[in-house]
Amino acid sequence: MPNSNEHIVSSYEDELTELARTISEMGGLVEKAIANATEALIRSDTELAMATVAADKRIDAMQTQIDEMAVSIIARRQPMAQDLRLVIASIHVANDLERIGDMAKSTARRSTQFEGITMSSQFKNGLRHMGELVQRQVKLALDAFAGRDKNIAVDVVERDTDVDALYVSLFRELLTYMMEDPRNITMCTHLLFCGKNLERVGDHSTNIAEQAYFLSTGKTLTADIEDLKREQIKS
Amino acid sequence: MPNSNEHIVSSYEDELTELARTISEMGGLVEKAIANATEALIRSDTELAMATVAADKRIDAMQTQIDEMAVSIIARRQPMAQDLRLVIASIHVANDLERIGDMAKSTARRSTQFEGITMSSQFKNGLRHMGELVQRQVKLALDAFAGRDKNIAVDVVERDTDVDALYVSLFRELLTYMMEDPRNITMCTHLLFCGKNLERVGDHSTNIAEQAYFLSTGKTLTADIEDLKREQIKS
Repeated sequence: MPNSNEHIVSSYEDELTELARTISEMGGLVEKAIANATEALIRSDTELAMATVAADKRIDAMQTQIDEMAVSIIARRQPMAQDLRLVIASIHVANDLERIGDMAKSTARRSTQFEGITMSSQFKNGLRHMGELVQRQVKLALDAFAGRDKNIAVDVVERDTDVDALYVSLFRELLTYMMEDPRNITMCTHLLFCGKNLERVGDHSTNIAEQAYFLSTGKTLTADIEDLKREQIKS
Repeated sequence: MPNSNEHIVSSYEDELTELARTISEMGGLVEKAIANATEALIRSDTELAMATVAADKRIDAMQTQIDEMAVSIIARRQPMAQDLRLVIASIHVANDLERIGDMAKSTARRSTQFEGITMSSQFKNGLRHMGELVQRQVKLALDAFAGRDKNIAVDVVERDTDVDALYVSLFRELLTYMMEDPRNITMCTHLLFCGKNLERVGDHSTNIAEQAYFLSTGKTLTADIEDLKREQIKS
């Protein structure tokens, strides 16, 4: 009997490990989607954009898969307090990753409207910088979640102000272009939404970091403090 | 002993009912938030806008509350298949409601920038119409969820194309204003994001309707079909 018991315990652990591995795999796809969407936008690469849009189906499917794994673990294993929190947190994280995937898809789709249009190097650099920054935020947030590391989680939340500041700077630059020449307006509104998409990737990374913080400490990273910071930077 | 057993069963039912009631209450707050944000925007009513921003704290708190109720029900009651799906779906629905609240807050916050600015009646009517439409979508989606009514759920998903069409029409009108006079550009970009916020409320309502459809039928409303529809309308 001890053997059989041990087997059950080990298999339950395996399922939790598999859940964590699947989230990490989904995270990898999402990071790649952001990188590709930003690159497609900067290079006006329609082929890469279409591939990024198509790849989102796999990200959506992984969210469903994680949801089902979570429900199955809860139903069959009836996890206790700490594990149950982890499984529920996994559902939330998969949800945020799916929305980050949507942001990448939306950016990629918009980028196809820019074929043959030239952006200034300065603007391209700004976009590339913001793309890299939010990609790093997603990665760090997932590291914090995987390692239940509250320090990395706090880093992610604090660094979101950098993302917001970059967005505000892109926003102002786009306003200038629009005012300079009305023919820029249509393209610039699409770019505005692309910038906003990246900024929202930062927000979703923050959500994931908050889940990590909660798992690590049992406490919530007070939403109030962040709200205040965001209001300061965005107003 | 039968009495004691009956008591447990009845109390479990009570908890599920209380969970449903809390979602419905949160839904009411969210509908009101959209109505208030739209009204604040149209009337440039800063006081109403500030109240709407402040009220979002309560919506956020209710999401946390629903999450905790759900985890507590799972941990103590170990619900079986159908009930477990319902509890997990409640977590998803609360998540979507919280984001709809964020859209209302963001719209209200932007509206404070418009004091003293006059919008055409036509544009105001468009905004009001869109606000009412998405508010109705939220209500119907929650009705579908509460009653596990697949027909209402399908209605909500189908009607999302009306929301998208309205958004496209607002978007085009704003582009025209920007091209007519560069002094309109800053205000119009804020209005663009307000329109986008309302359009996203429609998307979140669709997510809620999909949860309702799944609870009612055990099947997913194929994401593929909607994707295709959205691509047609948005491209």
